[in-house]
Amino acid sequence: MSLDLSTWTCPLPLRDYPNIVVGHGGGGKLTAELIAHLFAPAFALPSQALGDAAVLDLAGGRLAFSTDSFVVRPLFLPGGSIGELAVNGTVNDLAMMGARPAYLTAGFIIEEGMPMDQLAAIVARMAEAAQAAGVRIVAGDTKVVDKGHGDGVFINTAGVGVIPDGVVLGPQRVRAGDVVLLSGTIGDHGMAIMSVREGLQFEAAIRSDTAPLHDLVATMLDAGGRAIHALRDPTRGGLAAVLNEAAAAAQVGIQIDERAVPVNPEVQSACELLGLDPLYVANEGKLAAFVAPEAADEVLARMRSHPLGQQSAIIGRVVAQPSGLVAARTPIGGTRIVPMPIGEQLPRIC
Amino acid sequence: MSLDLSTWTCPLPLRDYPNIVVGHGGGGKLTAELIAHLFAPAFALPSQALGDAAVLDLAGGRLAFSTDSFVVRPLFLPGGSIGELAVNGTVNDLAMMGARPAYLTAGFIIEEGMPMDQLAAIVARMAEAAQAAGVRIVAGDTKVVDKGHGDGVFINTAGVGVIPDGVVLGPQRVRAGDVVLLSGTIGDHGMAIMSVREGLQFEAAIRSDTAPLHDLVATMLDAGGRAIHALRDPTRGGLAAVLNEAAAAAQVGIQIDERAVPVNPEVQSACELLGLDPLYVANEGKLAAFVAPEAADEVLARMRSHPLGQQSAIIGRVVAQPSGLVAARTPIGGTRIVPMPIGEQLPRIC
Repeated sequence: MSLDLSTWTCPLPLRDYPNIVVGHGGGGKLTAELIAHLFAPAFALPSQALGDAAVLDLAGGRLAFSTDSFVVRPLFLPGGSIGELAVNGTVNDLAMMGARPAYLTAGFIIEEGMPMDQLAAIVARMAEAAQAAGVRIVAGDTKVVDKGHGDGVFINTAGVGVIPDGVVLGPQRVRAGDVVLLSGTIGDHGMAIMSVREGLQFEAAIRSDTAPLHDLVATMLDAGGRAIHALRDPTRGGLAAVLNEAAAAAQVGIQIDERAVPVNPEVQSACELLGLDPLYVANEGKLAAFVAPEAADEVLARMRSHPLGQQSAIIGRVVAQPSGLVAARTPIGGTRIVPMPIGEQLPRIC
Repeated sequence: MSLDLSTWTCPLPLRDYPNIVVGHGGGGKLTAELIAHLFAPAFALPSQALGDAAVLDLAGGRLAFSTDSFVVRPLFLPGGSIGELAVNGTVNDLAMMGARPAYLTAGFIIEEGMPMDQLAAIVARMAEAAQAAGVRIVAGDTKVVDKGHGDGVFINTAGVGVIPDGVVLGPQRVRAGDVVLLSGTIGDHGMAIMSVREGLQFEAAIRSDTAPLHDLVATMLDAGGRAIHALRDPTRGGLAAVLNEAAAAAQVGIQIDERAVPVNPEVQSACELLGLDPLYVANEGKLAAFVAPEAADEVLARMRSHPLGQQSAIIGRVVAQPSGLVAARTPIGGTRIVPMPIGEQLPRIC
């Protein structure tokens, strides 16, 4: 089997990229096109279907199976480290399928010369995060690359979890009339990294929001059941990417009210300083939910009663038209289109 | 939780390594100590128990779950590429548990500037290998790191497979009297890489032996059933590492006859030229089996009838004493100890 790059047809001229650019890892349009035009056809999957996680029918039950690699820099930041991110990231991929995360594997690609106590500190953070999330790390792998061919440590985690009977979530289940809920403030993780990299000082340090979301999800499913149509955690590409993916998958439009989207004041200030839009900044402990209108108030109430959802809010609504488009009502009363991000706004944020 | 490195006690002074060295990724003693003293205690596992794969009790059946990262250089070599290695490596980790491999995830860490057609060629090789092995790649992740912080592409694969009822394999089941079987020639993969790196020329090119072993394993289990006590694929650290791990896990001795161990003549020549011992060179399509003596002949016959086991041989026997030691009868009739490798003989061979 060979892939003929010259036949790629894309809205963006991906075939005009002879080499990988940083944006191919950004979780936006370029990543989506790499998946749609390279990975998905090669692996004989439906277009755009090499997702964060998959549902397996195995051994008499449904399992969710997911993987994520972490290349974040710096390795330690306010509110977390690559260790917590590696555990919570995969836990959250499973949680977004409605699964109860159970087991993880951990693969380490370590650069020669990495301080042993730094590695030990990261592993300890992973262990704490796994314990907090109630998952077990059961298999692993260690590779070392020569100095100058890595960057401290890259960590891959894969995870399996059990999907309870009756739970079926997915962006294709989103429909016109659904209410869009958000579990809290956006932009904290990405701006925590940027403020460290850029040496920004605020009254309160901006902290990563890294957290395992499966318990919040269980609470929501308990309240909303099948009225919850889809869940997504807005990581790379931010809330904008998640809303655009849902609009494209379900062939619906999404309208949000920017004033309803919670943003911490420090994050807002940092974004303004750096010319960034919080809708595009990554999160590691938030989720967006698409819920049938009759269940939205009950689900929102239960989210607000959970420690990780206290600032939950209704931020918008799914509409039939214009299909595929995300629009935001701005604070001054206008309307703007929120397009899918193309490449990488903030490289290596997870 | 914090790990106190100063309390590490090891046969080797691991606590005297303030930084990671290449040997920590070599699959020998240094890797084992990193697992035993850092990963296993952190993740609350039995010492040395962060293995290549784990058995999960989930959803009413037993699953095997494994992970492996691939950092091989060069990316393409005679007989294979990082693509086949990434698929077959994880398939084989599952097969060594007696599992039928079913699903894989794929995580890519790509260096900025990697040629797109090279990535496409590798992905196509992965797809072919997955199809040949009868597994599906169902979820994935793509990260891009800036130039100078990677090396083309690193690939992580994780896999799940179903363990048939009644199959229980593991080095702790090895016992005195067991016969040691090997499925073919050793050293081909490692020397294929070395001959490319060193520019060695032989009459016939040395080719990697990368292959999926699960079908050979199924054939063996069909013939030997519970008389097959353990299976291991001798990758990093070679046959020497696998035999030493079994001797340590089962607290037995292992005696092999070097004349019985198949080695291709080109591989033998290359090893002599470079001063390497084939027992320590990596393989990617071979397995060693520890089998109760009454079933050994039947299992051997079935192995030889399989395309991937035609050169299978009985290479040795498990003895009660001296416990933990691997000894080899040399071609000239002497005996030598085959110790566990310490670090890395050939860096980045998988």
